[in-house]
Amino acid sequence: MTSDLIKGIQSRERISIARAISIIESENEVSREILSAIFPFTGKAYRIGITGPPGSGKSSLTDKIIKSFRNQNKTVAVIGVDPSSPFTGGALLGDRIRMLNHHKDAGVFIRSMASRGGQGGLAQSTREVGDVFDAAGYDVILFETVGVGQVELDVIQATDTVFVVLVPESGDEIQMMKAGLMEIADVFVINKADREGANKLAITLKNLLSVLPNNPDVWKPKVVKTIAIQNDGIDELVQASEEHRKHIISTGHHHRKLKQRYIRKIKELIVSKFELEFWNDENQKILDKEIAKDRQKRLSPYQLVQKLHQED
Amino acid sequence: MTSDLIKGIQSRERISIARAISIIESENEVSREILSAIFPFTGKAYRIGITGPPGSGKSSLTDKIIKSFRNQNKTVAVIGVDPSSPFTGGALLGDRIRMLNHHKDAGVFIRSMASRGGQGGLAQSTREVGDVFDAAGYDVILFETVGVGQVELDVIQATDTVFVVLVPESGDEIQMMKAGLMEIADVFVINKADREGANKLAITLKNLLSVLPNNPDVWKPKVVKTIAIQNDGIDELVQASEEHRKHIISTGHHHRKLKQRYIRKIKELIVSKFELEFWNDENQKILDKEIAKDRQKRLSPYQLVQKLHQED
Repeated sequence: MTSDLIKGIQSRERISIARAISIIESENEVSREILSAIFPFTGKAYRIGITGPPGSGKSSLTDKIIKSFRNQNKTVAVIGVDPSSPFTGGALLGDRIRMLNHHKDAGVFIRSMASRGGQGGLAQSTREVGDVFDAAGYDVILFETVGVGQVELDVIQATDTVFVVLVPESGDEIQMMKAGLMEIADVFVINKADREGANKLAITLKNLLSVLPNNPDVWKPKVVKTIAIQNDGIDELVQASEEHRKHIISTGHHHRKLKQRYIRKIKELIVSKFELEFWNDENQKILDKEIAKDRQKRLSPYQLVQKLHQED
Repeated sequence: MTSDLIKGIQSRERISIARAISIIESENEVSREILSAIFPFTGKAYRIGITGPPGSGKSSLTDKIIKSFRNQNKTVAVIGVDPSSPFTGGALLGDRIRMLNHHKDAGVFIRSMASRGGQGGLAQSTREVGDVFDAAGYDVILFETVGVGQVELDVIQATDTVFVVLVPESGDEIQMMKAGLMEIADVFVINKADREGANKLAITLKNLLSVLPNNPDVWKPKVVKTIAIQNDGIDELVQASEEHRKHIISTGHHHRKLKQRYIRKIKELIVSKFELEFWNDENQKILDKEIAKDRQKRLSPYQLVQKLHQED
């Protein structure tokens, strides 16, 4: 049963891929089996993260990036990540509709992932769905997220190349972003670049980037201007991403990143198995009893941990 | 030795507090002893997180907030958090100098925490330094951070009330923030409110907030306009924070938050102890051997985890 599914994934059958994704989303035992079985076939896809504020035109841009890769005869999978929030509520999912453009193209697979409660889970299952596409042989996987929440950072940091999408009016946002998005961008995209301020923003960004050391081993983020709805600048953007890819491969950075992802996955699995076992009824009862006390009467966290270990 | 230090902390001796902080920053064994000993004296301070982009005037604002609380005869500790970054590099620490205003006031303690590598560690030690101030009997602890990185979110989410500081020109940033800062703000501060656009921004914010349910158990973030350098609006801001505090106490939200922090700390300690023990030389060697292989020849993470457990 599972082996049929794995074969289906490897022959890039849409129905098998869709089933595997559903299983991963439901997080049952089978999901681990599938992920384990496909592991040897992963690690080949090129993963690009696309992030930026709502209204920056990420969806049109993604649409055109798909086309550009398709023109190179590369297959593309797209994962839209939408941590549900009272403020963004579903905007991203709505945008996805525009991508129906590609629904007849067997070389493109588009999938949205929405959060249902556990947000740690969303970033993890997004990475796992990426592995399914990877094993299915998609050449490029695009991860599209909104903004800079923790889930988005988790998703984005597990990609090879990150596009941060801005608009000419974003000048002020740069300040805001300094501590957040600046660090993660490999390519800055100034979209809607026919609007006023595009050049000024490009200069601001280049000035900010000039503080980075001049070292061939350190990637200097590129700044690319696009007008997505006119398909302007898209090939340059895709080329910039490929330069970045070459850079991380030739410097060994890509290799190290894949290693780190492997180690991280191992450590996550080890910890989650341990926590599941540790927090059995007995230990949970000890914790519950302590919490029920007035705070001042509780054991300190350090004392309680000692007690929990003695019970073991 | 440690008991003298604990006594010193409890009598709010600056030298003891400073020593405890240094010990926490160096993360040695004694640090756990101190934190365990002071635990029963914590949980009383009011913790306020202050965040916003560079240039929004957070430092002047913090300065004036200190004064306002001091006028109410409350003692105040301030922790500036500065995850070092090639882009923000030390800007926050520079600002700190302005706070020399208060260095002769025994009721105020100001401390900066900078990251030295491990960023997970910075958020944790910031919370622990907060516990020292709490045990020392400071009435109010202000946590000042820049931007929306992961460390900042970790720090901010462990406070009782969060101020998000904006300037009138921040209108465009609101979009950017939607997915990040909107969720964490209890009070929006529009600083430099004598500049154009302050009212427009206030209306934008209130419109955004209007999507929140009308439920007395759900806090509707306040919007307060200030001109920090003229001390305008500061008392209103402090009052808004106290309303929020009353709200979280009366709805039981504060109680739940303290419980969650306790549980989180327990779980962190349990996991870090486990990881330390699990990753002994033997298991580390098994992992290293696997990583040294070509990726396609490695066991899947799930298989390797099984193997590691069998060795145990």
